[in-house]
Parts: sequence; structure tokens; C-alpha cells
Amino acid sequence: MNAEIICVGTEILLGDIINTNGSFIASQLAELGIDIYHQTVVGDNHSRLHDALEIAFSRADMVITTGGLGPTYDDMTKDTIAKYFKRKLVHDEKSVENVKNLFKSLKRNMTENNLKQALVIEGSIVLGNEYGLAPGMYLEQDGKTVVMLPGPPYEMEPMFINKLKPILLKDSGSTLVSKNIHIFGVGESSVENTLRDMMIRSKNPTIAPYAKRGEVLVRVTAKAANKEEGLRIADPAVEEICRILKGNVYGIDAENLQNELVRRLSEKKKTIAVAESCTGGIVASRITEISGSSAVFGYGVVTYANQAKIDLLGVGENTLVEHGAVSKETAEEMAQGVRKLGNSDIGLAITGIAGPTGGTKEKPVGLVYVAVDTEKGCEVKKLNLSRRRADERNGIRQYAASNALFLALSSLK
Amino acid sequence: MNAEIICVGTEILLGDIINTNGSFIASQLAELGIDIYHQTVVGDNHSRLHDALEIAFSRADMVITTGGLGPTYDDMTKDTIAKYFKRKLVHDEKSVENVKNLFKSLKRNMTENNLKQALVIEGSIVLGNEYGLAPGMYLEQDGKTVVMLPGPPYEMEPMFINKLKPILLKDSGSTLVSKNIHIFGVGESSVENTLRDMMIRSKNPTIAPYAKRGEVLVRVTAKAANKEEGLRIADPAVEEICRILKGNVYGIDAENLQNELVRRLSEKKKTIAVAESCTGGIVASRITEISGSSAVFGYGVVTYANQAKIDLLGVGENTLVEHGAVSKETAEEMAQGVRKLGNSDIGLAITGIAGPTGGTKEKPVGLVYVAVDTEKGCEVKKLNLSRRRADERNGIRQYAASNALFLALSSLK
Repeated sequence: MNAEIICVGTEILLGDIINTNGSFIASQLAELGIDIYHQTVVGDNHSRLHDALEIAFSRADMVITTGGLGPTYDDMTKDTIAKYFKRKLVHDEKSVENVKNLFKSLKRNMTENNLKQALVIEGSIVLGNEYGLAPGMYLEQDGKTVVMLPGPPYEMEPMFINKLKPILLKDSGSTLVSKNIHIFGVGESSVENTLRDMMIRSKNPTIAPYAKRGEVLVRVTAKAANKEEGLRIADPAVEEICRILKGNVYGIDAENLQNELVRRLSEKKKTIAVAESCTGGIVASRITEISGSSAVFGYGVVTYANQAKIDLLGVGENTLVEHGAVSKETAEEMAQGVRKLGNSDIGLAITGIAGPTGGTKEKPVGLVYVAVDTEKGCEVKKLNLSRRRADERNGIRQYAASNALFLALSSLK
Repeated sequence: MNAEIICVGTEILLGDIINTNGSFIASQLAELGIDIYHQTVVGDNHSRLHDALEIAFSRADMVITTGGLGPTYDDMTKDTIAKYFKRKLVHDEKSVENVKNLFKSLKRNMTENNLKQALVIEGSIVLGNEYGLAPGMYLEQDGKTVVMLPGPPYEMEPMFINKLKPILLKDSGSTLVSKNIHIFGVGESSVENTLRDMMIRSKNPTIAPYAKRGEVLVRVTAKAANKEEGLRIADPAVEEICRILKGNVYGIDAENLQNELVRRLSEKKKTIAVAESCTGGIVASRITEISGSSAVFGYGVVTYANQAKIDLLGVGENTLVEHGAVSKETAEEMAQGVRKLGNSDIGLAITGIAGPTGGTKEKPVGLVYVAVDTEKGCEVKKLNLSRRRADERNGIRQYAASNALFLALSSLK
């Protein structure tokens, strides 16, 4: 089975919005073992969408479209595909009800054209939309499969996972079980080198590393008749990889560093407080993006000015004068200070030079200290995060924040 | 002239990385007045890339590729395109030097295959790479134009702006001058309704609104023989739009809210301190993402816990008990408290319920108070940011942060 993605929408075509749907669907299909060789973007234009369908079906068994299911005149995906397959559009009763209910709850009069969203292609399986009005569709005809999904990612993604995936899995007769091993502090090529033999040797499960925002993810995927068998096939490989990369593995099927940190702090009933200089609030905002983080995080400070480090964290004026704001000593006192300030189990601190200005020969842009203070004492790590990039400042800040989160996680072992 | 984009790379095709190149190039082309009807993604595969080129040139005058210019065996864009145009690959001397210099500076031996990156298609215009080793190329033949750009966005984007754009502009014989009016606090459709007559009436400059992360951008684009004439054509429309939407316009050609805030604070030599609850550090991190923000921002606190609001900001225990942490009164005391703490001209505070849990009938998820305290007094704004979305928590937090930044900006008028 091989599939192709067509993203429909002038806004995507002209670059007004970034096409995240393509990558979401592609990675989902890859996990399902469905090959994909092409993705296309076309505007809201009947004949160009029709031609794109023809080209796509000339080389793929399944075409998945996103977008163009809405109520306005330029939403034409359903129309075009119905004509392509010579089928009629009919009203889906449940969708009609959804539209009517919305207008009732808004206390507004519904004009007829709003019911356009409730039209589906006759004979298709309707994929309900939990976060919007336009339903998706799944249709097989003449050995071709077409799937229509809505454009907004917050409607499309849940529909893919909850409505489409079960259909695709049933078709394949087998199931895929994946485990994701999250790795920090070592590059993709180094992970690949370390695991190469294992990756080549192992056919089921398959083992594949992915670079992801300064981290590496190793995905172990087993194909099996059911979930239990899949786990039985995947688990030994997962264990071996964890053993090989142990110091750098921070979680399995963890969403990300902050999720894993909040989860482990909750588990251990510990709290953390954060003092940030160069990251300017990124660490606190990443921790608090997790629902439930208030149980483990109560105090954060962004001590961008030296005076703030003195006032709020009790960093010594001497320390700042003698060693500078970006130093092992300041990082240490910041971590100790914020732990005390927040009356927390863990104090985490970051100070560094994010650039592009402010670097010197002794303390270049990219020099960052992260420190963690616990009852066992204070650990400081010196990092050189400089890279020759246009968005270097942002890169240094984000990667410094990730390093701090990883250090906090490591202190919990 | 119409163009088509082909993004080459198995990592993009399989969704391991999000394709930001497509949207960047598309929006640049749109600004240049170059039509675009298709974008395609193909993997690192010679014959599929070749076929994609054939399809693209059957419907477009110009094809722009990204990716596949690197040194490894699966980088095959140059090869494929050279064969398509029946041209040879030759070494570009300047690029050879770049590669050699890099290895010299790394004190590593260079193997021959590294020079693959310095190969260019004979007869093409070489586009220098300021942030990497692989040069881009521009080639015209038989009425077809092909442009090859590198895959990494931090290499591709500066190359597009600095090397390719001047060539494309020279070709067109005229220049485009754009002004972007940044609007906050009103939706795209409302802006469109307000400006519809003007948009239809005005052919040069053109006027187009874009929705962008909770904001609206109205782009006024004039076509003219030179920049001065372009400005003369665009400026009256810009002024009229600013007059019509005045309360919601926060800047012209501003990068974003935080950039504009830091710029105006610097201009007025004022400082700001920030106290955040539900946004958990997002406002501070957005301010500090701007290089030079240290001149206007020194103190931020993330008072996630009630005790932190009392300890760090002096919010009254009574206030918290009587009105709750999410209330006009608490927001006010937070803003006043942080202004005092940071000894700043402006104190900015945010408190709210980001969800998904924690909401009640009286105080639902999405209820947010933003407050700004200055020498003129304290202004509090109550917001209802709830939306029925899967990523509601993130949406509320980001939009609350934007509202706070906009409020701070408004206080500077």
C-alpha cells in the first residue's frame, strides 16, 4: 500500500500558514507502515485539484486530502472528488444536526449555505469531527481509496487518530506497536553509529533514530497480530538500547523533557523552583505548559539584570564582580538562592550569553552554565552552545533551556 | 511568470521535520508578484525527483527546489537537475575554498567526497551560502528557470533574501514595496469587512489581510519603478488603514508585539517588569528573545503558587481569599507589586485559568486578567479566551501573553 497527501488551500500554497498537516499525516502513515512518495499542495481551484488527483492516483493506491471542506464558496474538495468518482453529495444527518445545534446555541439564524458543511459523498464512511463542523470521509472505489480530512490541525489531528487510524489498521490485518526512546545530549549521527549494527540486524522490530529539536528519538516499531505480541517483540530491543545509551536516555514514550520532569517530580512528590537569566522564562514556560505542573512548580524568577540576581536570589555582589554574571559561581548561587526562595526540593538556574552581542574572547556567545541545587548539593554544568546560524540567539536559548531540564531530570535519578 | 516549489528530502516527506521552506518561499514569491499553483515534496530518489521536475515544468516557468545539495550519497538534487538539462557538474572555486577552509579550521583531514558540496551545474549563477557549505544555483535554459536552494532553513532563507531575490527583481524590471500593518485584538474577517471596499477599489497598491497567530497583518504592496515611487504609492493607503483601525494597530513593519514593545520602551528609555501566573514565563521569554531587551527588562517573576504571589509581589492574603487568584484585584496587585519589585516604569501582570482543569461556572477555563501599572495608575483588562480546541491550554496561554504585550504597548501611547 502506498499513499499520497494533497493539502488543499490557497493559504498554505501561498505560505500564509505553515503546512503542519503534511508532516503530521506523513509521520502517522510511516508508523502504520504505509509508504509515501509524494506530498502536494494546491490552491482552492477545481481544475488544479482535479489534475492533482489524477497525477496522485496514477502513482498511489490511497490519496489523503486535507482542507477545503468548509462552508464557503472556495471550499471545493468534496465537490471535486465527488465528480472525480462520479458520485453525488448527500446530507449526513448527524452533521446536519451539529450545524443546527451550533446555530441554536449561538442564538443566530442559520442560512442554507451553512448546511454545505454537512454534505458528504454518497457511499463514503463519515469521519466525525469532534472539534469542528465539517466531517471527514473515507471512500473506496475501483481499487482506489480517498480520504478527506479538514484543514485546521486541531480538527484534523484528532480525526486522524480517533476515526481514520482504526480503519487503516483494520485494513492491514496486523497492528503496529511503537516505543519511543528519548535521548538528550548526543547527536543523531552518533546515535546512529552506536546502534548501526543493531538497526541493520533487526527487521522486526525496526529501529530508527530521528533528530528532533536538539534531541534524538529512537523509535522501535514491531509488527504483530495484536498489541501484546507487539510489546513482546519490541521490549527486548528497547531494553538493549536503553542499556547502551543509558546516561542519555531520559524517558520512554515521554512527550518531551518538561513532561517527563513534571511526571517524575509528581511521582516523587518533589517541587522545583527556577531562576533564569539568558533563557528569560523559557524553562518556566515549558514546565508550566504541562497541565498539573502547579503541583510541582510554584516559583520562577527571570533575573535578567544583575541587581535582580542580588535582590531576588541573594547572589553575592562580590561573586558578580569577581566572576561575572555568566560563571560557575553565579549559576551556583542562583540555584541555591531560588531553591531557598521557593522553599523547594530542587533549585534550577541558567545563566549564559545568548548573543548576538555581549560575547568576549574569554566568554564567547554560547557560553552557558546550568546548575541544579538539591539536598545532595549543587551541580553545575558548563556548556558551549555556539553555532554559526542566522537564528543563533534563539537556538542557544532553547538548547540551554533543554539542557537545564535534562540536568534537573538527571538529579532525580 | 509562475513558479513551483519542489522540496526534496525523505525527512520532510516522512514528516520527521515540518516543511517551513515551502511556506517561506511561497510567501516571498507572492510578495514578488510571482504566481504559484503547486508545491510538491519528494524523497531523495533520482527517478521520482526527475518525474516531479517534468510535471512541474509542464505547468510552470520556474521551479525552485530546496534540499539535496549536501555531501552524502542521498543528496542528489544537483545530479538529477544537471542530467535533466544535459549539463555537467563542475567545481566552483570559491565553494571548494570554503570546504577546505572549514576542514583546516577543524584541523581534520578532508576526504575527497566532501568536495561534492562544491560542485555546481555548469553555466549556472552560483548563489553563495553564508551559513553552510553547499552553494545554491540559478539556471535558465530553453525558457525554463530552475533555482536550487539548500534544505536547512537557516541556510536557505538568507540565501533567498540576499542572493536570489535581487536576481528575480532584476528580471521583472520593476520593484515591489510592501508595508505591513500589524493589528491586534480584532479578527481577520472583521478586518476584511472593514477594509473590503478599499481592498476592491485599490489595484496599486494591493491590500491584503493575513491571519497570523492570533493577530492580523494587512499588507500594502505597491509595484513601481523604484523604491521611492513605491513608497509614494503605498503610504496614503497605509495611513488610511491606520486611521480606520487605529485602536488596534500596534506597529508598521514591526516584527511582532515583543519586538515593537522593546523598541518603544528603548525609545522612551522606560523599563518593564513582568509577573506571570497562567502564562508561566511566556511573556518574559518573548520579551527576552529580542536582542537588546536587557536595556528595558531586568525583572520577571513566575508566581504560579499563591504563596509566591504573596512572598514576591506582596499580593494581600485577603485579596486572594476574597477574590481568588484569578481576579481583577489580584491582577492589579500583581502588576503594582512587580513594578515596585523591579523598580520599573511599567509593571505588567497576567493571571488566569489556562485549563483544561481548574475552571468553574463563575470562573471558566479561558478567563484571564491582564494588568498594567504605570505612574498614571493601573489598568486591568478581563478576557475570555476559551475555545473548543484540542490544544486549548497552549492557545489560551499564548493568546493571554499576546494580550499582555499589547496592553503594555497601549500604555506607552
